[in-house]
Amino acid sequence: MKTITLSHGSGGKLMRDLIKDLFIKNLDNPFLNKLGDAAFIKAGSKKLAYTTDSFVVKPLFFPGGDIGKLSVCGTVNDLAVSGAMPKYLSCGMIVEDGFRYADLERITISIKNTCKSAGVNIVAGDFKVVEKGAIDGIFINTSGIGEVFENSEIAISRIKPGDKIIISGTIGDHAASILLAREELKFKARISSDCGPLNSLVSSIISRCIRFMRDPTRGGLATTLNEISLACGYNIAIEEANIPIKKSVKALCEILGFDPLYMANEGKLIAIVSKDYANSILSKMKKHPLGKDARIIGAVEKEKDKRVYLKTQSGGSRILDMITGEQLPRIC
Amino acid sequence: MKTITLSHGSGGKLMRDLIKDLFIKNLDNPFLNKLGDAAFIKAGSKKLAYTTDSFVVKPLFFPGGDIGKLSVCGTVNDLAVSGAMPKYLSCGMIVEDGFRYADLERITISIKNTCKSAGVNIVAGDFKVVEKGAIDGIFINTSGIGEVFENSEIAISRIKPGDKIIISGTIGDHAASILLAREELKFKARISSDCGPLNSLVSSIISRCIRFMRDPTRGGLATTLNEISLACGYNIAIEEANIPIKKSVKALCEILGFDPLYMANEGKLIAIVSKDYANSILSKMKKHPLGKDARIIGAVEKEKDKRVYLKTQSGGSRILDMITGEQLPRIC
Repeated sequence: MKTITLSHGSGGKLMRDLIKDLFIKNLDNPFLNKLGDAAFIKAGSKKLAYTTDSFVVKPLFFPGGDIGKLSVCGTVNDLAVSGAMPKYLSCGMIVEDGFRYADLERITISIKNTCKSAGVNIVAGDFKVVEKGAIDGIFINTSGIGEVFENSEIAISRIKPGDKIIISGTIGDHAASILLAREELKFKARISSDCGPLNSLVSSIISRCIRFMRDPTRGGLATTLNEISLACGYNIAIEEANIPIKKSVKALCEILGFDPLYMANEGKLIAIVSKDYANSILSKMKKHPLGKDARIIGAVEKEKDKRVYLKTQSGGSRILDMITGEQLPRIC
Repeated sequence: MKTITLSHGSGGKLMRDLIKDLFIKNLDNPFLNKLGDAAFIKAGSKKLAYTTDSFVVKPLFFPGGDIGKLSVCGTVNDLAVSGAMPKYLSCGMIVEDGFRYADLERITISIKNTCKSAGVNIVAGDFKVVEKGAIDGIFINTSGIGEVFENSEIAISRIKPGDKIIISGTIGDHAASILLAREELKFKARISSDCGPLNSLVSSIISRCIRFMRDPTRGGLATTLNEISLACGYNIAIEEANIPIKKSVKALCEILGFDPLYMANEGKLIAIVSKDYANSILSKMKKHPLGKDARIIGAVEKEKDKRVYLKTQSGGSRILDMITGEQLPRIC
């Protein structure tokens, strides 16, 4: 019997196939078919971005964040990297009978604080309770509506050979923090999730010379670059030496055998920028607190094999595939 | 230790208090605070309605519908009774590891068909998988955006003494169908859920003489009328003899000791209409297949005790309270 497995939710190839073979096939429409981080819709003369995300992270509270903060940031960031200023959010909570009121309150206050810092409002909500055992604590869905920036022209079809790839900061922090919180490892360094709203960073850099942006969440930097390469057709090459990774994250990954290139981020963005403006966008990004560790990590190549290459520190080059299987379930 | 219980999700008083004391207190903003079925937001000169709902129904498939159909109808109907034409939906699914692919496909096809009949598109989606035991099968969240009808002026503040209360058809069908499907009762009559999209019915009747609409889902007709009475301040009186109930639903309720006035509906609406136009709206409603059993069931009174009264067939009158406790968990 064919069943859904954890790997179908990893953000990798199996999930991609499922989305294509089941959802796009049946729900087929020009908005959904673009498979963007958000759909672009029209309301009168206004162009809006619209997105949704569910959050099942475990544990609910972790260094640097919690499921409430994550629920707001996840949707805010999908709108932001689509070149839109997030305005209105919805929030649907499903809670297990017996869930601690104090925890629900802590999560709600975290949602409140994150909304405040992102400048958005939860304008619609839903609350369901299911019997003990029917859910593991609490799952949250948010959806969001943003107004597309006047000077934004984010479209994967605008990517050209020679474009530079910028990452807004260190990678793997979120997944490493969850890993550490979950495993209760005795690890000296404290690793905090990067979970945070990116809309202020985006509004400080947005311009037509940004061809495309995406936040590398499930599947990490490597999987997100593969998605971009598949969609635009061009190869992408990144330089290992230029990828910013915190020492503590690197050390944890080495101990546990994880590859930070596949580890989820919740407060980072990849920007693909026309090459003549890459340095200017980079320096703008570096002026923002959330972009201070930004780096140009690679470029779009002219070859069209839809492959992502990692140029290693030793001078070699290897193919970076999409994530396969499930590295870390319930990361977000 | 204070915990969340099933009753907090019933649509009744406990849920109302939780929403006020936790969510409105913390997430406080003029859109959310109205506690409408949908929030009204502006995009340029356009007035939009925006709403969200999560679906945890058990069993997933029942006579007259399934969790997929319900997920589309629930959100479409919240927009429709807010006086808006539903346009764009988002859909977030959380699925248990090991869930049957064939069931996911059946649910997706049902979503597709319901979207088609309601004239809406799923434009944004999210798919998460959690480990075995972390969720009971599949839960779905939808959110939706609708364009408010030009000639709609739905506002609870417009309700006045003398206004008539119209129900669009028989009550309790959805809950009765779930009850029957869940309990595997040997009951001769087949009861189908009324689960269906109301936007076509609404567009056939919408006009300024409709003061307010709401779909009586969780908590049923009695709870929804109580919410309306609490919000507008006026008493409401309904006539037992005029409330349309299918014989089979009535019989099932009598056997099991349920009160159909508190049973959820998923394809019915309550319209509060200025008295001079009530008959005209009623006859328009009756011309629509989903409104053929519509009835005027009562009126708004001038007294301001925020009470709902049922005038019984025997000539008496009793207070109809909000639902307390949880009549039937996971009804939607």
